[in-house]
Amino acid sequence: MTQAGPAIHEIQESLPGHRVVLRDGADITLESGATLGPVTVAYQTWGTLNEDRSNVVLICHALTGDQYAVGTHPITGKDGWWESMVGPGKPIDTDRFFVVCPNCLGGCMGTTGPAAVNPKTGELYGTNFPVITIRDMVNAQVMLMDELGIEKILCVVGGSMGGMQVLEWAARHRERVESAVCIAGAARHSAQNIAFHEVGRQAIMADPDWCNGLYYKEGKRPESGLSVARMAAHITYLSEPALWRKFGRSLQDRFNKSYGFDADFQVESYLRHQGSTFVNRFDANAYLYITRAMDYFDLETEFDGDLANAWKDIETRFLLVSFTSDWLFPTSESKEVVRSLNRAGANVSFVEIESDKGHDAFLLDEPDLFATAGGFIDSVAREAGI
Amino acid sequence: MTQAGPAIHEIQESLPGHRVVLRDGADITLESGATLGPVTVAYQTWGTLNEDRSNVVLICHALTGDQYAVGTHPITGKDGWWESMVGPGKPIDTDRFFVVCPNCLGGCMGTTGPAAVNPKTGELYGTNFPVITIRDMVNAQVMLMDELGIEKILCVVGGSMGGMQVLEWAARHRERVESAVCIAGAARHSAQNIAFHEVGRQAIMADPDWCNGLYYKEGKRPESGLSVARMAAHITYLSEPALWRKFGRSLQDRFNKSYGFDADFQVESYLRHQGSTFVNRFDANAYLYITRAMDYFDLETEFDGDLANAWKDIETRFLLVSFTSDWLFPTSESKEVVRSLNRAGANVSFVEIESDKGHDAFLLDEPDLFATAGGFIDSVAREAGI
Repeated sequence: MTQAGPAIHEIQESLPGHRVVLRDGADITLESGATLGPVTVAYQTWGTLNEDRSNVVLICHALTGDQYAVGTHPITGKDGWWESMVGPGKPIDTDRFFVVCPNCLGGCMGTTGPAAVNPKTGELYGTNFPVITIRDMVNAQVMLMDELGIEKILCVVGGSMGGMQVLEWAARHRERVESAVCIAGAARHSAQNIAFHEVGRQAIMADPDWCNGLYYKEGKRPESGLSVARMAAHITYLSEPALWRKFGRSLQDRFNKSYGFDADFQVESYLRHQGSTFVNRFDANAYLYITRAMDYFDLETEFDGDLANAWKDIETRFLLVSFTSDWLFPTSESKEVVRSLNRAGANVSFVEIESDKGHDAFLLDEPDLFATAGGFIDSVAREAGI
Repeated sequence: MTQAGPAIHEIQESLPGHRVVLRDGADITLESGATLGPVTVAYQTWGTLNEDRSNVVLICHALTGDQYAVGTHPITGKDGWWESMVGPGKPIDTDRFFVVCPNCLGGCMGTTGPAAVNPKTGELYGTNFPVITIRDMVNAQVMLMDELGIEKILCVVGGSMGGMQVLEWAARHRERVESAVCIAGAARHSAQNIAFHEVGRQAIMADPDWCNGLYYKEGKRPESGLSVARMAAHITYLSEPALWRKFGRSLQDRFNKSYGFDADFQVESYLRHQGSTFVNRFDANAYLYITRAMDYFDLETEFDGDLANAWKDIETRFLLVSFTSDWLFPTSESKEVVRSLNRAGANVSFVEIESDKGHDAFLLDEPDLFATAGGFIDSVAREAGI
């Protein structure tokens, strides 16, 4: 489909918020061995950094999230994705904490990624962008903290892919992490999740408008492929009971079946809407790179087959949260992390929250989540005298 | 992708096996009110019809199944899809029963469907084919039975979509059905299943080679779209534990990650293979029509919101079978049918089989399934003096 509006890199460059170029333009070495630079990180902050810089909460976003956790989203015009959790008097209290949320490396909202211009060449990266990992994303955040002069983080918190980053932070930068809140996360991506990601990638790459990843140059976007990828993924974010409660077999604007291939059922119409709105705010190549990073994540293997090795003598306090109806990052995955932390003698709290909302519950109005995460962060903060 | 081999309708017409034109070429009225004709049904049989025509077992196949339940498949060269269940001395014993397996209406293996030539016009149907339903599929089977001079069926048996047809047979043609075996089926398609089907349809229709359904004329096939549809669906046929047991996070022919978008993981390679082989044996439009038929299936609504109404005073004996790890047609769906049969005072047996193989378990080597189905069919046969 030919692109109507401005090119994706023009959108990225015009987004409001903070930017920083990491390490003054020096190259970063990635986990793959490739180098990348200069790397820009786009981020948002809320609240005020206290004098001893001890009140920092770092939010790591999920696959299709971004730095606009709070406030009007500059592209969609909608509320931020974590308004329920972050704000004055909320579990992540912006009256009390200095909250930082960066766009992840490989993303498409201002942080260097495949849809950005390579400052060295003036060309868009496209599929010349190197494959990145969760570790690379966290390393970029570590450098961002350095740039901001923040040594210790009171709490690193995130859901889903954000939860993976939280575990990566704690495993490799423990000295900087007072506490870690991993919501609906996992220490490694499951075979089923890799499979669903692969379906999405194949849908994108099968779209002729993907142009072998160089669609920017052609003034095109693989909207159909990205939309199908989003639709497939969106099903995995919900639960069967939630889909049934929300839509059941209700027909869309019709009293009778059309006996055709229109969106007869409300659930079809809903999914199509999810697909078609997504392509307006997300870059297809970014989707490829970020899903790949998630697939590659496997802390257990990296720590010699026993996740407990990651947590030896760790002083970071942990909270793990899962949701009963989440089949993408099921409770069993959180429990594996909890058991490894127990084996290592770490300080860990674990709550499985009863919810029929599936994986998406971490983004939704879940009072038990607010009470659990809020209580944990408050206790960590009080311990630190904040 | 340009098609290399013979056109799909040429393949269909050359397939081995029986054919019959229903009702001597008269039109059939479909559930939608549309008419269709002449309708050809392709079918296979095994065993010998006894003198009083009382030893008939009718097999209803699943979404991507066909009439080649037993024997070498004429396209793939592989064994039939239900060799484990059907044959001499097997649960569906071809030494004892006359077994009939028709290709469903809307299919692409010789029964009239979108990839067939409309004998009235000499043109391929394509998307001019009318949308059909499970009821239409069963009505075509009823007419096939008429053509074969078979009044009573000892057992109608099928899994998944085949199970839907079994329930439809029993609900609307009870006088002809001595017993009904519904394996991993449901009386209505769930919202989540409609959602997954919609993803598959969107993947097919987004493929430019779909050509608005008229790809046959263009000498094309929407192979990429159909392959993505198959990949997404295939994940739902398995279970997470089965995927983990089979593949885990093992890498494919590599010791290290490629840091690219090749199929690094075995599960990716497996899925891609499932997608690419499927397009050689299945028609994309048939996939659209058959998934739609499944989505529309809802016996409960058709019987005034209480499935028990479908079974009032029914004398058919029922067996329902589900599998513990089947999340596509979960045990709860079978239980709803069982409860409705109980409310109606029908003769019903129900077995939930412990298996980690997911929905596909009904096609696989499951001794408990063979014992359960075999025992049931044997008892029905002995009662009938066979």
